Amino acid sequence: MLLPMAPTDSLFLLGESRENPMHVGGLAIFTPPDGASATDMRAMFDIALTGGKVAEVFRKRARRSLTSLGQWGWETLADNEIDIEHHVRRDALPTPGGMTELTALISRLHGTLLDRSRPLWEMHLIEGLTDGRYAVYTKIHHALADGASAMKLLRESMSEDPHRRNMSAPWQVPHSLRSVPTPVAAKSSPQGSSLPATLWGASRAAVGEVAGLIPTTVRTMDRAVRGKGSAVSVTAPHTLFNVPIGGSRHIAARSFPLERIRLLAKHSDATINDIILAMSAGTLRHYLHERDALPSAPLVAMVPVSLRATDNADDRTAGGNRVGLLMCNLATHLDNPTDRLDVIRNCMNEGKDSLRAMSPAQVLAMSALGIAPLGMEMLVGQRGPQRPPFNIIISNIAGPRTPLYWNGFRLDTLHPLSIPTTGQALNITCTSSDDQISFGLTSCRRTVPDLNPLLDHLGTELELLETGAGL
Amino acid sequence: MLLPMAPTDSLFLLGESRENPMHVGGLAIFTPPDGASATDMRAMFDIALTGGKVAEVFRKRARRSLTSLGQWGWETLADNEIDIEHHVRRDALPTPGGMTELTALISRLHGTLLDRSRPLWEMHLIEGLTDGRYAVYTKIHHALADGASAMKLLRESMSEDPHRRNMSAPWQVPHSLRSVPTPVAAKSSPQGSSLPATLWGASRAAVGEVAGLIPTTVRTMDRAVRGKGSAVSVTAPHTLFNVPIGGSRHIAARSFPLERIRLLAKHSDATINDIILAMSAGTLRHYLHERDALPSAPLVAMVPVSLRATDNADDRTAGGNRVGLLMCNLATHLDNPTDRLDVIRNCMNEGKDSLRAMSPAQVLAMSALGIAPLGMEMLVGQRGPQRPPFNIIISNIAGPRTPLYWNGFRLDTLHPLSIPTTGQALNITCTSSDDQISFGLTSCRRTVPDLNPLLDHLGTELELLETGAGL
Repeated sequence: MLLPMAPTDSLFLLGESRENPMHVGGLAIFTPPDGASATDMRAMFDIALTGGKVAEVFRKRARRSLTSLGQWGWETLADNEIDIEHHVRRDALPTPGGMTELTALISRLHGTLLDRSRPLWEMHLIEGLTDGRYAVYTKIHHALADGASAMKLLRESMSEDPHRRNMSAPWQVPHSLRSVPTPVAAKSSPQGSSLPATLWGASRAAVGEVAGLIPTTVRTMDRAVRGKGSAVSVTAPHTLFNVPIGGSRHIAARSFPLERIRLLAKHSDATINDIILAMSAGTLRHYLHERDALPSAPLVAMVPVSLRATDNADDRTAGGNRVGLLMCNLATHLDNPTDRLDVIRNCMNEGKDSLRAMSPAQVLAMSALGIAPLGMEMLVGQRGPQRPPFNIIISNIAGPRTPLYWNGFRLDTLHPLSIPTTGQALNITCTSSDDQISFGLTSCRRTVPDLNPLLDHLGTELELLETGAGL
Repeated sequence: MLLPMAPTDSLFLLGESRENPMHVGGLAIFTPPDGASATDMRAMFDIALTGGKVAEVFRKRARRSLTSLGQWGWETLADNEIDIEHHVRRDALPTPGGMTELTALISRLHGTLLDRSRPLWEMHLIEGLTDGRYAVYTKIHHALADGASAMKLLRESMSEDPHRRNMSAPWQVPHSLRSVPTPVAAKSSPQGSSLPATLWGASRAAVGEVAGLIPTTVRTMDRAVRGKGSAVSVTAPHTLFNVPIGGSRHIAARSFPLERIRLLAKHSDATINDIILAMSAGTLRHYLHERDALPSAPLVAMVPVSLRATDNADDRTAGGNRVGLLMCNLATHLDNPTDRLDVIRNCMNEGKDSLRAMSPAQVLAMSALGIAPLGMEMLVGQRGPQRPPFNIIISNIAGPRTPLYWNGFRLDTLHPLSIPTTGQALNITCTSSDDQISFGLTSCRRTVPDLNPLLDHLGTELELLETGAGL
């Protein structure tokens, strides 16, 4: 049974190429409980690999055929059709087994395409960290799960109880991800195993509808924001990040204590998200300045923000993830970190006000984009030398608020890895945990040959902001 | 300066897709000299990575542009444009670090596409073999080098002298691979850095010429062979190997003592190549028979054979590698291994006779195909459910005849890894060394989910043939 794919999801298959892989990733690092070692975690995975059923979400394969009018749909494979050793792979770090070796490995794993003839995910079990920890890198196609959904999958496969044992492997835990149309019309289909063409036609119309909404959304946002006299703009200067990209990736990861950022936010009358943006802004300014490539106009970031006022379950079911997209002035033309934070905070506040003032239809149009690493460029076709609509996507995905464990192994850090695209060679995504904010930087390896200067400067920028706030 | 690519080479770029990566590979395993360890080899590579120039052949990038009329050409990058850490990568095996872990890693590395925005090669330095050896997997796009050329690159970077030290890394050794048109016309080009369009036009015409020759070649071969009343056929039964493939790979590697195969060949009045074909034939028969999938008609292998009578250097320069393509009846309908060897030997002898009887133009047409893992199917467009022209490509690439060393580390074995294609889900390639014949099996992971039965049966088949020959 081939079920139509949500139009926004299929865009990630249609837009994919060897230069633009469309998967998201996560690098999780675990600390063994007292008396256990990384080898024990490996042994538990080995046992899981020999048995147990693969959860349905990890058996979904993307397919298109003549009967689906060439559109992408999902089919669910039987458990015995899954080659689990293709999906779950053992890796090891070369000596000395530090973060350098780990990020080098993940950079390469994040730069290869998933096999489209199988369910679109991989999980890499990585041994050889010299500090005794164990790393797991997961890679999921954006058509199957966006960053927030992937986070949900992770949370559901773990426990808040450090003493819980006999837990299933993450790929064995039943998850409830995304709704697909129920196959009510199946019986009337002459093909038996396919949905009638009319349903596929409806699905195709929806793709057009979503694509058509995007320029409208941009215009709406622009007007709404300009109407309030804000400094926000949906045009941005050209920078060295806004170029065509290759298929190889660099990734870099660094964590900061949540308490430090929370304290700074409090003293600056800002949100944690504002601080993340200010740290990123200073880092981008420094990187471009050092290369004599800082434009005089400020850089613009596209920032996905959650619009859900309540955590009401009904609301969540009805509306899905209501995500608004804000264009944030990063004030990279200003020299003083605290001045930059002021501009960013005001810009985000005004932007959120104007988003709240939008009609439900407008919000829905925007939400349809999801957390859109695909970039609007791909959809509105701005691949030429025009000025980019924004310079970088900076996302902050809400992570778990309590410590999480898998069979007693504590999840130390989780670095999200996202999708650079044509015109967007660098992506910054963060997740929060109970005690940390973890940055994941993902770039086109050719455009940004070394991410370490950026990583280092994030720390410098945090210190400068703290000094500016009198901390 | 963009120089036109040989038409046959560019076919491997044109024909490539995520399901059909077009690179060849080699897995080399080294034994440390007395008093040294695998760690020392790693240390030598580390030093090489910090300096030294990258040889020209490894700085060639494939590119096409408007001025090249959309055709592929080569441009040579400057040394400082090479991101050597992209090309030379450190890998490690998970515990226990045996052949299972090694082939699992190589299977994955062999299944990912090379980055087309860079020179088309990767070298993986692999530590963690529990037996104290060191492995190096090299991956080169077929547009840059075929199996024989890759072998030449390897030989040139090594020494017959076990005591030689301070040798450069393989990517630093100047090689003389393939000739490209000399840029004599460059000065008259209005673009300055490009060849005139007429030269590109000539290059394009040559592609058509080669493609046009192929059906002719097949017909010629067919007629020539049939004229001699041979059992050889250019049609073949359909088997489970002759299906569309996915992008994931399985590889398997096994070596046999050269002396054993040489003795068997002598007692059977056969060549070493005949024995390799007979071992493969029995293995394929067994594999298909066990799956109730053995066709009643015998399988047909396409076997590239060298047509160079002399080892004369002038001849080599003038004619390139003169490779003939034979269709060999594998006699898989016969139960007795010795009977199968008889058919194979006769078939190969008759085929070689008829190749020798061909005109130089006919041979050139055939040689233009090179050692063609691309398959004729891709070129003649036989992707439908028709009977395949052959069932499998079985190649035997001449390897070094003396022991080879790199800084004292002995090259133990070299397993060649080739290219499964649409309709050809399994490939068998061998290389000989001074004391071994090494098999490399490369398959579509979905079509042939486990290569171990094939690997095991190669040994069984050799024993059966030995028994049949009274050994």
